[in-house]
Amino acid sequence: MEQLFLYLVPFLGIVGLVVMAIKSAWVTRQPTGEKNMVELAGYIADGAMSFLKAEWKVMIYFVIIAAIILGWSGTLLDNSSPIIAVSFIIGAVLSAFAGYLGMKIATKSNVRTTEAAKTSLAKALNVSFTGGTVMGLGVAGLAVLGMGGLFIVFYNMFVLSAGGGVNGHEMETALEVLAGFSLGAESIALFARVGGGIYTKAADVGADLVGKVEAGIPEDDVRNPATIADNVGDNVGDVAGMGADLFGSYVATILASMVLGREIVSDDNFGGIAPILLPLVIAGLGLVFSIIGTFFVKINSETGNVQAALNRGNWISILLTVAASFFVIQYMLPEGDLVMSRLNSIPFTKMGVFGAVFIGLIVGALMSIITEHYTAMGKGPVNSIIRQSSTGHATNIIGGLAVGMQSTVLPILVLAGGIFTSYMAAGLYGVAIAAAGMMATTAMQLAIDAFGPIADNAGGIAEMSGLPKEVRERTDILDAVGNTTAATGKGFAIASAALTALALFAAYVGISGISTIDIYKADVLSGLFVGAMIPFIFSSLAIAAVGRAAMDMVNEVRRQFKEMPGIMEFKTKPDYEKCVEISTKASIREMVAPGAIALVSPIIVGFLFGHEVLGGMLAGVTVSGVLMGIFQNNAGGAWDNAKKSFEKGVEINGEMYYKGSEPHKASVTGDTVGDPFKDTSGPSMNILIKLTSIVSIVIAPFIPLDSPLGISDSVGTDVIPKVVQVQQELPEVIETLEVN
Amino acid sequence: MEQLFLYLVPFLGIVGLVVMAIKSAWVTRQPTGEKNMVELAGYIADGAMSFLKAEWKVMIYFVIIAAIILGWSGTLLDNSSPIIAVSFIIGAVLSAFAGYLGMKIATKSNVRTTEAAKTSLAKALNVSFTGGTVMGLGVAGLAVLGMGGLFIVFYNMFVLSAGGGVNGHEMETALEVLAGFSLGAESIALFARVGGGIYTKAADVGADLVGKVEAGIPEDDVRNPATIADNVGDNVGDVAGMGADLFGSYVATILASMVLGREIVSDDNFGGIAPILLPLVIAGLGLVFSIIGTFFVKINSETGNVQAALNRGNWISILLTVAASFFVIQYMLPEGDLVMSRLNSIPFTKMGVFGAVFIGLIVGALMSIITEHYTAMGKGPVNSIIRQSSTGHATNIIGGLAVGMQSTVLPILVLAGGIFTSYMAAGLYGVAIAAAGMMATTAMQLAIDAFGPIADNAGGIAEMSGLPKEVRERTDILDAVGNTTAATGKGFAIASAALTALALFAAYVGISGISTIDIYKADVLSGLFVGAMIPFIFSSLAIAAVGRAAMDMVNEVRRQFKEMPGIMEFKTKPDYEKCVEISTKASIREMVAPGAIALVSPIIVGFLFGHEVLGGMLAGVTVSGVLMGIFQNNAGGAWDNAKKSFEKGVEINGEMYYKGSEPHKASVTGDTVGDPFKDTSGPSMNILIKLTSIVSIVIAPFIPLDSPLGISDSVGTDVIPKVVQVQQELPEVIETLEVN
Repeated sequence: MEQLFLYLVPFLGIVGLVVMAIKSAWVTRQPTGEKNMVELAGYIADGAMSFLKAEWKVMIYFVIIAAIILGWSGTLLDNSSPIIAVSFIIGAVLSAFAGYLGMKIATKSNVRTTEAAKTSLAKALNVSFTGGTVMGLGVAGLAVLGMGGLFIVFYNMFVLSAGGGVNGHEMETALEVLAGFSLGAESIALFARVGGGIYTKAADVGADLVGKVEAGIPEDDVRNPATIADNVGDNVGDVAGMGADLFGSYVATILASMVLGREIVSDDNFGGIAPILLPLVIAGLGLVFSIIGTFFVKINSETGNVQAALNRGNWISILLTVAASFFVIQYMLPEGDLVMSRLNSIPFTKMGVFGAVFIGLIVGALMSIITEHYTAMGKGPVNSIIRQSSTGHATNIIGGLAVGMQSTVLPILVLAGGIFTSYMAAGLYGVAIAAAGMMATTAMQLAIDAFGPIADNAGGIAEMSGLPKEVRERTDILDAVGNTTAATGKGFAIASAALTALALFAAYVGISGISTIDIYKADVLSGLFVGAMIPFIFSSLAIAAVGRAAMDMVNEVRRQFKEMPGIMEFKTKPDYEKCVEISTKASIREMVAPGAIALVSPIIVGFLFGHEVLGGMLAGVTVSGVLMGIFQNNAGGAWDNAKKSFEKGVEINGEMYYKGSEPHKASVTGDTVGDPFKDTSGPSMNILIKLTSIVSIVIAPFIPLDSPLGISDSVGTDVIPKVVQVQQELPEVIETLEVN
Repeated sequence: MEQLFLYLVPFLGIVGLVVMAIKSAWVTRQPTGEKNMVELAGYIADGAMSFLKAEWKVMIYFVIIAAIILGWSGTLLDNSSPIIAVSFIIGAVLSAFAGYLGMKIATKSNVRTTEAAKTSLAKALNVSFTGGTVMGLGVAGLAVLGMGGLFIVFYNMFVLSAGGGVNGHEMETALEVLAGFSLGAESIALFARVGGGIYTKAADVGADLVGKVEAGIPEDDVRNPATIADNVGDNVGDVAGMGADLFGSYVATILASMVLGREIVSDDNFGGIAPILLPLVIAGLGLVFSIIGTFFVKINSETGNVQAALNRGNWISILLTVAASFFVIQYMLPEGDLVMSRLNSIPFTKMGVFGAVFIGLIVGALMSIITEHYTAMGKGPVNSIIRQSSTGHATNIIGGLAVGMQSTVLPILVLAGGIFTSYMAAGLYGVAIAAAGMMATTAMQLAIDAFGPIADNAGGIAEMSGLPKEVRERTDILDAVGNTTAATGKGFAIASAALTALALFAAYVGISGISTIDIYKADVLSGLFVGAMIPFIFSSLAIAAVGRAAMDMVNEVRRQFKEMPGIMEFKTKPDYEKCVEISTKASIREMVAPGAIALVSPIIVGFLFGHEVLGGMLAGVTVSGVLMGIFQNNAGGAWDNAKKSFEKGVEINGEMYYKGSEPHKASVTGDTVGDPFKDTSGPSMNILIKLTSIVSIVIAPFIPLDSPLGISDSVGTDVIPKVVQVQQELPEVIETLEVN
């Protein structure tokens, strides 16, 4: 029966990919509109591909070098294998391929959505959301197929062929090798998220500063040389970046739950392989129910509620997944108490495991709702920023920073509550399973997320091609919903990254073989401090990088306006490629430093100070990264919508203010500060915290217990085993003495 | 011989207070200048006192209620005593008295410094620095006398009278009661720092926005109704706030070291009472050598280097204290290995303890140097903000935020290194002793810190009284040095708060009786998350409070200008008192919410979730508080000096920009954002992290091991004691069996 579930998982992955192919073909068959629309869309598609190619050129070196090191290190220990290099490469390639698929479909769907918007809102939603669905199914399908397929291979290779039981040492090796897949996926996500974030904001800020402010031409004007780069940026950052981020979370969550599942299995072989297999099965089910959910995202008239349609689809997938999880857990897991092999875990039953799935879904939903409250137009937080815009730039900034900081409270309480209750429900396995439950409907989440930038792009194409007003109005409705889903999607992404990181953290302790991460020890506490500092330097680097890249863009646009005077009279076509090239080059150059910090710091700390200090550092990165991520995402989102509110007009102290007023100008300052916050450094925190953990998991078996400056490990591992030994020996001693 | 040291400590405290009285009398004897100068100084002094009185009115209720609760709780347990209420009240009263002394002397020294500046720079430095010295000696003298005196009382009352040994349960009670003193001191510091921070910035921002920007009159103009409140604010925030902060750190550090010293003593009575007494003796010595150091702060000519004179005095006190500590440690501590009674501590010798003192002083010095680098004019970080001011408000803000985040890296590495090395040197006792070493010369540090606002006030009085240009020039020289010492003082304050908090953290674990704070446990990790979030909400509240209070001030100044048109022609005297009242009321009102969070959150978490989760929360508050403190202090300092640079003129891309240029306006925005950062929320982090820890220490004995939602404590305390028990019983069992 286990065999059935084992092979069911990759099969479900294939189902997802087949549906994706069908939907993709449908999108491709949709009409593309006039020649100039196709031409503009072509520029965007070419720009996006040229970014991907430039990114791949850098990544290929990184992947080769990392694979060689991993392969070599795999030969060093008994419970490691050089196969991890292959696993790593497959993870990297699949992640890159998922990004490619998403980018390809997004740059196809945008122009077709514009064309559909000529007919009706319903049709435009259908095209853009189907584009998003292709992206979601591609990412989730590849992840499920990849993890499920590789697990079968490694299970056969390491466990069955060696005649090992599922509770043996061999399963540890299989999972350690599988961690390579996750490392590969997350490494690519790093470059996609950070590079994409820098790209999109450099282009956006550059286009705005010279085009809108200096030259006084509207947004998305075809005369602006940076406008194509700006539209490419939406795809690069919001589609490929978000896709790679969630691909990484999805894979890492499944991995962490499997590692912790092994802890249950290894103890007493209780439940067979089921606790290891369960997270894979839940992911597969979530994928299938996401497909079903997408069929409910439809509106029937011009006045149909787009947001409600998206919510309907989302909730249907979630509820079906919950229901199915209940039966699967009942069927797969054994009766009676399960327990993990760690000192500090608690016994739990299969109802507890189901409770954890449920908690994960609630945490995800709450995080989205809270994020919406802090960033949506017309609500308290955004209104407070609007009021503070009336006294100038400085008070607008202070207001936004205060909102951002304040917005960390509820999400942290929800997260802490989620960790606590899922731990009560099913121990550390419960925390991981809660993350898995939350991530199960990733396909649906991504479909909703990716729909936003597609609609945004469609509006840009409508504007640039000079289409009739009602077309732009329809795409604007979609775009407005897209802005909300972008914010809530970020809430979901950071929550998933946090739970994933915690699951990975627990898995790390499992793999490293230590029994505590005791911050009462001074060196572990130092690790905590250093870890918590890393999100600050990472954010600082990312923000500064956007500033530098935007300056390059500003200079180029100024040069083109000066040297090609025909641009302004629509006589000369601006050199779009040059701007695309600048954004591409800058993002590739600037992503190296923050990326290196994320990859290298756990290695240095781990090998110098040992397992437990590294554990402290991981906790520091996670806690501080989650806080900085929420703070920056929400401050940026609130600033953005405070600015947007002025476009409709806002009332402050009885007076109305519109676009162009002094308070509006102050709100533009806030929005510009918020841009790198919400689209570069904030979302990068997800990758930072996950990557630090996954690197630690991969290096854990290689860190010796007597590391050069390690105090804690030797003590930590000395005390407990000695005590356990004493306890075990006591009866023997007594027996021996009694015999004598 | 121990008796000698025991009684030496309060004696040294008295010496400090006597010298303070002599210096205070000398300042009072200095001439005060013309009638209008005296009148203006009188307004400032009255305003400062009216703030203190308003603050005390609120605090008296708080102190009475808290004392009753503490007294009642002191009757509940064996190792507690209702005397803690008395100890608490004495701590609160002495802290308030230290603030009163500092405020009194500062508002006397300011006008006398102005008068002295008519003669020479040397004389002006002498008066202002002597004023600062009075403040420093008052704070340190009261702290040493209070702690030393109360320890003698409680030692006699609980230990000697009960016939208990120094290693017994009775000493624990004595120290727990002494913790009440620290709690009293830190509670008052909370109100002084937070309330003072809100006061000073509300007045400053209010005075600037209407006076400088709207009415176009210069800073410190006598026509500005808020100008007196602004000058009062310098005293309230920078003198009383900083004084109460360092008084609290000083006391808390000594307490934490004593608690950890008891751990050594309690183990084997090794070294008698010496490890407990040592931190008090080091504090006493530091006080005496600070007095000696102050005699070296002198310049001989108009071109003398004021900064060099301050540095000379500072280093002389530090070096003498180090040398004296060496001999005292050699003499007091026993030969051979000392060890603490905790599982995870390491054996150490008296040279190790001396090493820890030395490390503490180096950490303090490095923190000041690093802070100066990130905030001083003419250096890379400030220059980068200047450059980014040329592209507008938004890029100035982004630049400052990036500098602030980046500036956390080196301080955190220094702190982590300090924790690690002092732990290697002398275990957790070493970490506490490092903090004690760093704080030893608090009197000198405070003298240097308090000199700044006195000089600032002196300049304000010179401007308001219309004195000749050379007087203002001399006070400006002092003020410029004061700006640097303000920034480095903040670096010292946050470093001392961090080390103090860590020492308290270690002491908390000692008192609570748990053996680990294991963040691998999900509930402890949740505590870490919640703790790390608190500095964010605290900062958000403090920043928002400044915004609201400043708006009140703006409205009042506008009203006065409108209703009293004579003000502008110097015909009507503005209603200074009204502005003072507004700032006072707003600061008292707004300090309640953040203060309540700091006081209440550890109580809720502790009693609901138990000791270990509270420990996790403490770590979270400390780590995140230190980061947010450094980030906000340094961003604010850098923005301030970027703005100031424009007053002299700066070159950006080959062009010169001055006051009034567009880049300068952008830099004013940054400065305004930075004001609440560096003077309200940033410095409040110190109090937040210390107060959370000290509250935890006081409540620790009352938290049951089976708290309602506590998972970890029962597990954590079950495992280790059981194991220890088994280990201890093993020989007995064997013996019994052998006998049979």
